[in-house]
Amino acid sequence: MTIRIYRGDALVDGIEADDRGLAYGDGVFETMLVHQGRPVWWPEHWQRFELGARVLGIPVPDEATVHGECGRLLAGAAHAVLKIILTRGRGGRGYAATAGTIPTWILSRHDAPSPTPPEGVALQWCKTQLAVQPLLAGIKHCNRLEQVLARAECTDPDIFDGLMCDTDDRVISATSANLFARIDGGWLTPVIGRCGIAGVARDWLLRHLDRAREAELGRTDVENAEAIFLCNSVRGILPVRRLGDRQWPGDEAVDRVRRQLAIEQPAFSFEDS
Amino acid sequence: MTIRIYRGDALVDGIEADDRGLAYGDGVFETMLVHQGRPVWWPEHWQRFELGARVLGIPVPDEATVHGECGRLLAGAAHAVLKIILTRGRGGRGYAATAGTIPTWILSRHDAPSPTPPEGVALQWCKTQLAVQPLLAGIKHCNRLEQVLARAECTDPDIFDGLMCDTDDRVISATSANLFARIDGGWLTPVIGRCGIAGVARDWLLRHLDRAREAELGRTDVENAEAIFLCNSVRGILPVRRLGDRQWPGDEAVDRVRRQLAIEQPAFSFEDS
Repeated sequence: MTIRIYRGDALVDGIEADDRGLAYGDGVFETMLVHQGRPVWWPEHWQRFELGARVLGIPVPDEATVHGECGRLLAGAAHAVLKIILTRGRGGRGYAATAGTIPTWILSRHDAPSPTPPEGVALQWCKTQLAVQPLLAGIKHCNRLEQVLARAECTDPDIFDGLMCDTDDRVISATSANLFARIDGGWLTPVIGRCGIAGVARDWLLRHLDRAREAELGRTDVENAEAIFLCNSVRGILPVRRLGDRQWPGDEAVDRVRRQLAIEQPAFSFEDS
Repeated sequence: MTIRIYRGDALVDGIEADDRGLAYGDGVFETMLVHQGRPVWWPEHWQRFELGARVLGIPVPDEATVHGECGRLLAGAAHAVLKIILTRGRGGRGYAATAGTIPTWILSRHDAPSPTPPEGVALQWCKTQLAVQPLLAGIKHCNRLEQVLARAECTDPDIFDGLMCDTDDRVISATSANLFARIDGGWLTPVIGRCGIAGVARDWLLRHLDRAREAELGRTDVENAEAIFLCNSVRGILPVRRLGDRQWPGDEAVDRVRRQLAIEQPAFSFEDS
């Protein structure tokens, strides 16, 4: 892992202990796949990043500056992961932000994840529920204790991730991926207007899958689905072979859209995995 | 402000950029008043700190060690504020914590707040609502974007703080203080089992006020109350003179319990303020 930290436009040596990111999770982040030195889906990630910062009222650094610094950090990276965190910057004690605070942003380069098993991943249901908070829904903010607690439930090494419901028992997503379920031949993904994250891969799939739309889904809808898969912008499309006791065989439609994604974004090619 | 940072038992130079406190708000904190070099209500704060860390599954550093380090940091502080943050420590990318991660803890010493106006403070209602999340209710964790957004609504310099409701329109608290309202002669404070923080001053008041108990309160209950006040462990008891258009005169019962608190904890003495 390589990390660079900036305050405003200046490269700095470290994080200050009074950064509001640390005190309150007062920030947003993006995580993207890197292919041949370039972040995949940059415009889509930047758009969500800007939206999240606007919701929180944090000034966004200049896109060209950030993109240029990312390019320097990622030079020579054939296959990697880039994370960007933006926080409101330093602050005193108390929730009120000082006017004119200079935001902190952090770029980090990580190893690419290990390849997805071709037979698909196994999931479990998590007990930890997502609170309903429309004000923060969709954006990728840094208040992620619910995901941390849900992920900690997945102690079985065979389990790739856990599915989470909201406090009204609607299915929302995995801890770190969105969900699609094929029901009556159409692809449904949970509404994320009350909680959950508007995933970049999810958006791509809503545009490219046959008969794809948002819907409210319960646990039994998902368990009875003809096929399900996860998606995120680091791993692309992840076929699911098992959820608790429910098992699914491979699915031709899932394979087809995976190939389509790999053609459009070769970073997600899986033929060699 | 003076800050000391520790990783496990060791004093370290700074916060690592991959600290999970920064990435996910993955931590808890306490803020306490300091009087003549000593934190007020230390045992009560430590109890909530330990409970919060247990809920999040973060190992707590040794109490005597932390207390000793606080004593060194606070030497010579006649009147100040102490903040302790505990995070899960460093982590890679992703919500799963690595087993054996060494927690980070941060002590900071701040100036005491300016004295409370003797005529009481003015409040407003905030539009930002608190999500209902029983799993995290009561503890003082570091996911505080709701409070940050609510506090940012309070732009009128005459407004001391804002009152928040949950997403079901129950009144919960101010952004940084608990609330008591006298209704039919009894003191009621909102239930904090679904969201909100179990304040140390709130606990003291539940034990010391006449006919005090937890209750579900709506906005009109609060606006029609005979008297209301805020409390937290840095400022003690804050009489409220105004909430939106509703005004209250001074209240003898509030003054009485303020004097009682100042006798038990001279740190909260207000005779000279």
